[in-house]
Amino acid sequence: MNNELIKKLSAIFGDRFSQSIDVIKQHGESKSHYPEVPPDAVVYAETRDEVKQLVDLCREYQTPLIAYGAGTSLEGHFAATQGGICLDLKMMNRILSVNQKDMDAVVQPGLMRSELNEHLKSSGLFFPVGPGADASFGGMSATRASGTNAVRYGTMKENVLALEVVMADGSVIRSGSRARKSSAGYDLTHLFVGSEGTLGVITEITVRLQPKPASTIAAVCSFSTLKGAVDSVIQTIQAGVPIARVELLDDVSMAAVNHYSQTNYSQQPTLFLEFHGAPLAVEEQVKTVEKIAQHNTGGEFKWAVKEDERKKLWQARHDLVYACQALKPNAVFWATDVCVPVSQLTECILETRRDIEQTGIIGPIAGHVGDGNFHVAMVIERGDKEELQRCTQFYERLLKRALKMGGTITGEHGIGDGKRRYMREEHGDAVDVMSSIKKALDPQNIMNPGKILPD
Amino acid sequence: MNNELIKKLSAIFGDRFSQSIDVIKQHGESKSHYPEVPPDAVVYAETRDEVKQLVDLCREYQTPLIAYGAGTSLEGHFAATQGGICLDLKMMNRILSVNQKDMDAVVQPGLMRSELNEHLKSSGLFFPVGPGADASFGGMSATRASGTNAVRYGTMKENVLALEVVMADGSVIRSGSRARKSSAGYDLTHLFVGSEGTLGVITEITVRLQPKPASTIAAVCSFSTLKGAVDSVIQTIQAGVPIARVELLDDVSMAAVNHYSQTNYSQQPTLFLEFHGAPLAVEEQVKTVEKIAQHNTGGEFKWAVKEDERKKLWQARHDLVYACQALKPNAVFWATDVCVPVSQLTECILETRRDIEQTGIIGPIAGHVGDGNFHVAMVIERGDKEELQRCTQFYERLLKRALKMGGTITGEHGIGDGKRRYMREEHGDAVDVMSSIKKALDPQNIMNPGKILPD
Repeated sequence: MNNELIKKLSAIFGDRFSQSIDVIKQHGESKSHYPEVPPDAVVYAETRDEVKQLVDLCREYQTPLIAYGAGTSLEGHFAATQGGICLDLKMMNRILSVNQKDMDAVVQPGLMRSELNEHLKSSGLFFPVGPGADASFGGMSATRASGTNAVRYGTMKENVLALEVVMADGSVIRSGSRARKSSAGYDLTHLFVGSEGTLGVITEITVRLQPKPASTIAAVCSFSTLKGAVDSVIQTIQAGVPIARVELLDDVSMAAVNHYSQTNYSQQPTLFLEFHGAPLAVEEQVKTVEKIAQHNTGGEFKWAVKEDERKKLWQARHDLVYACQALKPNAVFWATDVCVPVSQLTECILETRRDIEQTGIIGPIAGHVGDGNFHVAMVIERGDKEELQRCTQFYERLLKRALKMGGTITGEHGIGDGKRRYMREEHGDAVDVMSSIKKALDPQNIMNPGKILPD
Repeated sequence: MNNELIKKLSAIFGDRFSQSIDVIKQHGESKSHYPEVPPDAVVYAETRDEVKQLVDLCREYQTPLIAYGAGTSLEGHFAATQGGICLDLKMMNRILSVNQKDMDAVVQPGLMRSELNEHLKSSGLFFPVGPGADASFGGMSATRASGTNAVRYGTMKENVLALEVVMADGSVIRSGSRARKSSAGYDLTHLFVGSEGTLGVITEITVRLQPKPASTIAAVCSFSTLKGAVDSVIQTIQAGVPIARVELLDDVSMAAVNHYSQTNYSQQPTLFLEFHGAPLAVEEQVKTVEKIAQHNTGGEFKWAVKEDERKKLWQARHDLVYACQALKPNAVFWATDVCVPVSQLTECILETRRDIEQTGIIGPIAGHVGDGNFHVAMVIERGDKEELQRCTQFYERLLKRALKMGGTITGEHGIGDGKRRYMREEHGDAVDVMSSIKKALDPQNIMNPGKILPD
């Protein structure tokens, strides 16, 4: 790193500029199987103006700038593959406003979603997007995150109303507004949502909030066949039931969960469901879905109404990631996802399950079945290059399978460094349009270079 | 127009290429008060490859290309202000597929929304986005249209899953897929939705469909105060009632409606409502909303359950545009819209009503109140330049008022030529980001030049 730049950064940021080994290592560590790729330095900004100063310096010294939220992304999004400075936004974590009547909130990028929901506790409102890990609003916006509630409440795409962004040229822009809709020009908000820090640094986010449902009921139901479980969900949605969550765990996942969480669910394809709404509406939804499940090889529903019971019931689903990790102690964990039209989901999961078995790897499958999105959690012996190689080949087949079925190589994890070499296979010449936009907005390629776009 | 280009176009398109006065005049006529600005020629394409050929020729001869749907836009979107060729897409009007299980349809841009819904009649599905006029899918996508159902089902932004677009350089790209969600790269779909033909020509659209509700109930309720009507809607949404439509007509609009439709509604701020869902859920919604309205100066609800009764009830709302036009025979009609955070809606409408009265113009107000979006329909004596001038000044104040209240200069009508000089006031330096994207994707500025972006 340029010495002059180091001096300038030290002068501006003081001890919020760090090149200590521990700090840079921590900011290069992946939660997935990717190797550690630390940045040259880490800066903790406290204000938008500091972010702008940093961007201006990175441009001046042609140094990559990598925005960093909670570090929970899974595809090497913040790996400093071209060196540079990691901008950790955790000190910009204020809630700037909550607008009760408009049901929105304005927050800084370092705020965690759990912090906003804690703050909203007595307001009757909540923020619905919840990826597996407790993530920051900046990170969730930049990666177009979603999670279990997306089938009803949408992903970050549907829930970000407006952004403030520091662009590569140092300009600070606002996209969108607190109005619920607009036809005023290009939709820059949705260009930045999912752009993974490659087009600018998000410094403020306006999100939609949802009213807390008057009634919530959770349920678990196992099915004799995977097709029965998926068809139940398709028919539920076609029946107009506004189901709030519906998660599918396959038999392998259920075995892992039973072992880890000491539950004794049937080791069959299983749906975890949740219904939100007014009391009578929820009762009606429940009856409709029970009937649909019974027609599709479903067993008895196990219900949970009280909050602690619901939490306990969902705990098994939430523990899945630990349950998978527990399958092999000290293993490397590689979680990936694809998303297909829901009509293709049964076939895609069954083919993938066969592929996993033929490849001889460990890979429980779980999915946000209402969206056609599922995850495979590969558990790999640490240091076993041959197994890693087999997993890589399986992973490639998985992505190609999803594309062949009209789907996408990632429903919610994003591209980062990990999946960018498959971008052209999904998007064809549209990749050139993306590259043109990147070049137009960041001609020096300082914003998280080497991500999303293929070489 | 270049003679060589004329020859080439005639050779390719035969009698689907026209320079006849009638045809070009028809393609330059605005449904609003804007002057007629005809193109030099009109081409009717039948296939994507023909669109590509046309784009290639327009690029070669540096000739503007204006994509044209049903001609119902209101802000001079297709005015040929720089001459050029109008590409009428009405012959590309096929339904390419309806995927029942995935609840989506793939259509060509010239298809009208009524045609898709007619086709879907016995499927149990429907397409929910409905602007006032029967519009084409290409036009609705390109202008980010919405309408009365948006409060529940979203706008075109939420309902377009994927697009095929012919870019200015002649490349044909696909954005998005039939998967319900994706985090795979920049969200080009939402960049094209609302880009008004300035970035490329949309040649195929994949839209989401919705299940037809098992039960539908419509209602009308008048309120002593505008605030009571708006607060009722805010409280309804905060109570988690998934109301399907809620339209506000002010006292002036109600007077116009009564006169035109020979109804005898109270001449007060009035809500037209519609509830969709399972039978018990709808009953529950209705009870909740009735109670809320009673607490907010609402009168009796007039209900309609059977389809013909509902149609009759909503007819008054749908007739509003004709009712306004009937206020002054042979007048010019200037309908505009703004959108503000819903907490600001009462104040914005009241200030606007006062402004209308002080300005001495005719302007009934009606709005999609759940979204904070409202319309003013100015009815202007044809040829009265002084009145038009006063309307223009009022219009400017209206847009600035919406911006001051944290809103947008258009919720659903778009920018076109009419509002582009206000773009910087809304978006500040974000306009430069939009311009950079336009330059990167259409360096010769052949795609509907002179629209959206200010000079």
